[in-house]
Amino acid sequence: MSNHEKKGGQVPQPDLSRRRFLGAAGAGAAVAASGGVAFAQGKPDPLITEIQDWNRYLGDSVAAHPYGKPSKFEAHVVRRDVEWLTASRESSINFTPIHALDGIITPNGVCFERHHGGAPEIDPSKHRLMINGLVDKPLVFTMEDLKRFPGRTNKIFFLECAANGGMEWKGAQLNGCQFTHGMIHNVMYTGIPLKVLLDEAGVKTNGKWVMPEGADSAAMTRSIPIEKAMKDCMVVWAMNGEALRQEQGYPLRIVVPGWEGNMWVKWLRRLEVGDQPWHHREETSKYTDLLADGRARRFTWIMDAKSIVTNPSPQAPLKSKGPNVLSGLAWSGRGTITRVDVTIDGGKNWVAARLDGPVLPLSLTRFYADIEWDGREMLIQSRAMDDTGYLQPTKDELRKVRGVNSIYHNNGIQTWLVRANGETENVEIS
Amino acid sequence: MSNHEKKGGQVPQPDLSRRRFLGAAGAGAAVAASGGVAFAQGKPDPLITEIQDWNRYLGDSVAAHPYGKPSKFEAHVVRRDVEWLTASRESSINFTPIHALDGIITPNGVCFERHHGGAPEIDPSKHRLMINGLVDKPLVFTMEDLKRFPGRTNKIFFLECAANGGMEWKGAQLNGCQFTHGMIHNVMYTGIPLKVLLDEAGVKTNGKWVMPEGADSAAMTRSIPIEKAMKDCMVVWAMNGEALRQEQGYPLRIVVPGWEGNMWVKWLRRLEVGDQPWHHREETSKYTDLLADGRARRFTWIMDAKSIVTNPSPQAPLKSKGPNVLSGLAWSGRGTITRVDVTIDGGKNWVAARLDGPVLPLSLTRFYADIEWDGREMLIQSRAMDDTGYLQPTKDELRKVRGVNSIYHNNGIQTWLVRANGETENVEIS
Repeated sequence: MSNHEKKGGQVPQPDLSRRRFLGAAGAGAAVAASGGVAFAQGKPDPLITEIQDWNRYLGDSVAAHPYGKPSKFEAHVVRRDVEWLTASRESSINFTPIHALDGIITPNGVCFERHHGGAPEIDPSKHRLMINGLVDKPLVFTMEDLKRFPGRTNKIFFLECAANGGMEWKGAQLNGCQFTHGMIHNVMYTGIPLKVLLDEAGVKTNGKWVMPEGADSAAMTRSIPIEKAMKDCMVVWAMNGEALRQEQGYPLRIVVPGWEGNMWVKWLRRLEVGDQPWHHREETSKYTDLLADGRARRFTWIMDAKSIVTNPSPQAPLKSKGPNVLSGLAWSGRGTITRVDVTIDGGKNWVAARLDGPVLPLSLTRFYADIEWDGREMLIQSRAMDDTGYLQPTKDELRKVRGVNSIYHNNGIQTWLVRANGETENVEIS
Repeated sequence: MSNHEKKGGQVPQPDLSRRRFLGAAGAGAAVAASGGVAFAQGKPDPLITEIQDWNRYLGDSVAAHPYGKPSKFEAHVVRRDVEWLTASRESSINFTPIHALDGIITPNGVCFERHHGGAPEIDPSKHRLMINGLVDKPLVFTMEDLKRFPGRTNKIFFLECAANGGMEWKGAQLNGCQFTHGMIHNVMYTGIPLKVLLDEAGVKTNGKWVMPEGADSAAMTRSIPIEKAMKDCMVVWAMNGEALRQEQGYPLRIVVPGWEGNMWVKWLRRLEVGDQPWHHREETSKYTDLLADGRARRFTWIMDAKSIVTNPSPQAPLKSKGPNVLSGLAWSGRGTITRVDVTIDGGKNWVAARLDGPVLPLSLTRFYADIEWDGREMLIQSRAMDDTGYLQPTKDELRKVRGVNSIYHNNGIQTWLVRANGETENVEIS
């Protein structure tokens, strides 16, 4: 069975007529025709006309925080875990607060974590990377060795856990996009192409698969086809300009662009080249999708096109009528996002959102739609399209093909119900 | 006097013949022809063949750090200030550790700080932005108001202090690129075009200048021509995806792309529209360039093209002979970097470095050159060119035109001396 069922299927077109979209907005909101609405009172208030304490007294000195941290007023913008999801927090997950972020760069401090044996603290001077198996010349590298290789490069990629949205297969469950879609982050990586290292070792002609292995207590392993390894995988030591964070694999991880996150082995200590996949635990018992008829989809590597409206959402309700910014994220493991449609009336009418650049392949893409809200209920959805022509399906379309046994690869359309008071809920409509 | 003296001047071409460059490398190093050099020993060592503690024991749980921080092994990668530079650390500066970063994104925790009255802690619910002066409709905005405006966008820009490199006008002084060139950072900003706000208020026909004012105790002000304000300035509340940091203007700052950093007023509380510049302290007594003949260059807004080799550099010496990666940053306040040349023999031979994307206008651009080092001394320099054709000048060329009275706008070529033991020093050659 294809893991790309929707490819080439029928692609509904959004109604791009603004006039018609406005007229048909039965749910009580409309995309704003212009910003010409009074956003602010016409007269000053005491908070601007009177001297405040921060005008009166000296602030913090430049020596206050050699490594800075967020304002105390932003203490709610943190990774959160869900206690009942797993038995042990060392083999668990937490979630990126995507409802409270903007743009396409995820700050390192809030990139979600998934560990199979906890995040180890590794002294980089004692870390080694070995290449062995079907190679001409087995090699061991120090971190210093790796940083001397020619071909160093920087690339922005999203990383999504295969289980992102997994709790939603059986119906709307977690009330917040941090929890339904927060197993994702998007950073700029610094490192070298994996091909450079493999070429240095010399892959034998029967070397068809590469197995990265982690140095953590779980010794995470996955099988990667040599074509992917040679095409765009990277071995990296930095994210967003600074060293990898401990929980993201410090000092070394592998980057497998567009493919499910568990393959991006952290604390990378070994690359074995073989002539067939290893069929280890994390690609058989786990990260395999059980179908309704008892068969299984395996090696479901690629993360299909997906999108989510991050604002409004249950953790970020609407606070005012009138102009509001609908915002969200879209991505595809197959290429570049070419279009995102949004609806505020549960799919009766769609309009193309504005993609805000940079729009890069295998990266999160930010989209916006400027709306006018008159206070009536809205059913908000988004759907992404990538440059293969694939259109993000509904959850029901996915369930018809895959059943509901698996927690993996749910890229179905999400619905938020915005109530008259602005509060927003996770719902499903059919 | 033009503040762009070199524009249209003679542009030396680098020797792009690799063969000739290699042959002429009298200083004992050469750009590597390939990576085919043994980087690592051919046999395993105990650090990879033996089980380590991090393989044996569970690591940190996902609940350990709701907001993450760097590894303890990276404690040296911090902002640093220079105690003797200023009398008060509330009106002072610290420096980005650019020698320890890579790519083009500066992590928020290490973005350099420059305060004129310390970094105030402002409650965003009490923060207001006023627009007044020559407008049809004076307005006051809350933070919530601003976030409801249509046209929200994200852009990556460098911010450089006009005094970056200022201590070097009179000769090589500070021993590290963090101190010579670290008054710079490069982040992705989220906000709205300033034009959107000005249009909402309605600028009168005689409104030719905009004065942003900070809410800190220094009440920082600068005069910005209306053309620039309408062209590409932004009012922003987020950097690299999350809220502005306190020391970068939380909750609101103005972005003035390509122009000197002091104009990017932080803790932005007011925008006044006027018919002439205000000639306030920070654009007359300060941030004005005194020339040798007693005249002054004023309104030297644009940051001219500049580059710096960050590795090797005094804080990041060379550790091994053989292959090494020469790395650096280039930028221009006039547009996009089109070329960076590097030399390892003090300017006898130049070669074009490899620009590593994304290469964006008014953004830091990363460059690399893969070198082979045989252990002899090197004199390393870089020079940047932008898409106006401007080529970064030498310090002596700048001094001839400007004298040495000012500490501002030193975009001259920097020289590092790499000694036989790999230690690297700040030097000048003529």
